[in-house]
Amino acid sequence: MKLGRVVGTVVASRKDEKLEGLRLYMVQDLSLGITGRDSFVVAVDSVGAGVNEVVLYASGSSARQTRETDGRPVDAVIMAIVDTVEVNGAVAYDKTGD
Amino acid sequence: MKLGRVVGTVVASRKDEKLEGLRLYMVQDLSLGITGRDSFVVAVDSVGAGVNEVVLYASGSSARQTRETDGRPVDAVIMAIVDTVEVNGAVAYDKTGD
Amino acid sequence: MKLGRVVGTVVASRKDEKLEGLRLYMVQDLSLGITGRDSFVVAVDSVGAGVNEVVLYASGSSARQTRETDGRPVDAVIMAIVDTVEVNGAVAYDKTGD
Amino acid sequence: MKLGRVVGTVVASRKDEKLEGLRLYMVQDLSLGITGRDSFVVAVDSVGAGVNEVVLYASGSSARQTRETDGRPVDAVIMAIVDTVEVNGAVAYDKTGD
Amino acid sequence: MKLGRVVGTVVASRKDEKLEGLRLYMVQDLSLGITGRDSFVVAVDSVGAGVNEVVLYASGSSARQTRETDGRPVDAVIMAIVDTVEVNGAVAYDKTGD
Repeated sequence: MKLGRVVGTVVASRKDEKLEGLRLYMVQDLSLGITGRDSFVVAVDSVGAGVNEVVLYASGSSARQTRETDGRPVDAVIMAIVDTVEVNGAVAYDKTGD
Repeated sequence: MKLGRVVGTVVASRKDEKLEGLRLYMVQDLSLGITGRDSFVVAVDSVGAGVNEVVLYASGSSARQTRETDGRPVDAVIMAIVDTVEVNGAVAYDKTGD
Repeated sequence: MKLGRVVGTVVASRKDEKLEGLRLYMVQDLSLGITGRDSFVVAVDSVGAGVNEVVLYASGSSARQTRETDGRPVDAVIMAIVDTVEVNGAVAYDKTGD
Repeated sequence: MKLGRVVGTVVASRKDEKLEGLRLYMVQDLSLGITGRDSFVVAVDSVGAGVNEVVLYASGSSARQTRETDGRPVDAVIMAIVDTVEVNGAVAYDKTGD
Repeated sequence: MKLGRVVGTVVASRKDEKLEGLRLYMVQDLSLGITGRDSFVVAVDSVGAGVNEVVLYASGSSARQTRETDGRPVDAVIMAIVDTVEVNGAVAYDKTGD
């Protein structure tokens, strides 16, 4: 999985029928130091994430292993909202102080 | 999924039989600021997209989860035409003003 | 899918039994301007491509959706020989003038 | 598979139900010389790894081929703790002297 | 598939039970000119390859299509030992003169 920050939303009225009802988020990849990278994905939300939250997303066929995404043309899904990240013994991210 | 802009078309008369009838588009990847990147894919269209439109495409096995691509040797499919993208609270892309 | 140019061949006499009878091509990735990139793959040919031709190849599990590659340890397959590529309204590649 | 070093942990209380009970590790990718790279993944642990250990992780659908990860939205799994790595005839990594 | 050179081995005594009995090789990626790149994978051997040999490896779910790797958490498999590579009409690699 990758760590990302929800930085925005995508609206698309014309889409494959299997995408109906899914929320699409812009998710910017994060570095080990929890700063924004240059890359991003558009991911389906399966956990009620909101803009600005740090999340985990899964890619590829694994992105279809949630109830929301099963059998759909979706290759990235947010499956967790991150509370804390610890790197090399220090707190790299803490949601309560974000 | 990734955000891309349809920048062209590919014509191939000699191809695997399972590709018959599919439209093939050149799709340039976009940055968070909705400018063109260096990379691109050739994607099958499942939603009636046209040249110049900003689209979402899915990759890998997820690209075979549409009616058009099921069971075919296709690893990228356009499954939505984007209306708007919002990033960090501002409109990064709006189809009506494109 | 990706656009590539067939630039060579690979011969391997010792291989997994499921690879018997498959032709293996060196395929160099192409840029939007149809010039050679630094990267390449070794792909199985399913359409009778030849050296120097511009082709489309599919990767991952999608590469196993042709008759030649079904159930084999193959992650890249040439599934179309390209006639023309149009980018931004201009002809970027035309096989007849290649 | 890729070689990585477990450098930290991720805690997420709000997550897809299928992630309950899985331990999530920050795993930094390693170079051929067994030094840390810029990239990392968040991987599920299936072998009882600990922080600081050098591990092997599998990605994509292969990450769902362990008892812990089967059918879950997981795209990276630690499936081995590395004892030694030998490169070009020399010991590049030895756990006992790490 | 990708071209790589076997440059070493990985030993891991603590691992997922499905990895028992598999040989794990360090495989460095090669350029079109058959020189070593910066990147590498750890791949399972299915063809009796040895250190220093140039090989083909398959990635992702395709890596599980050999008898040795079926159903295992393995995302890279060596499935051929390369005899010769020809690029742009010239021999880029010949095992007998390696």
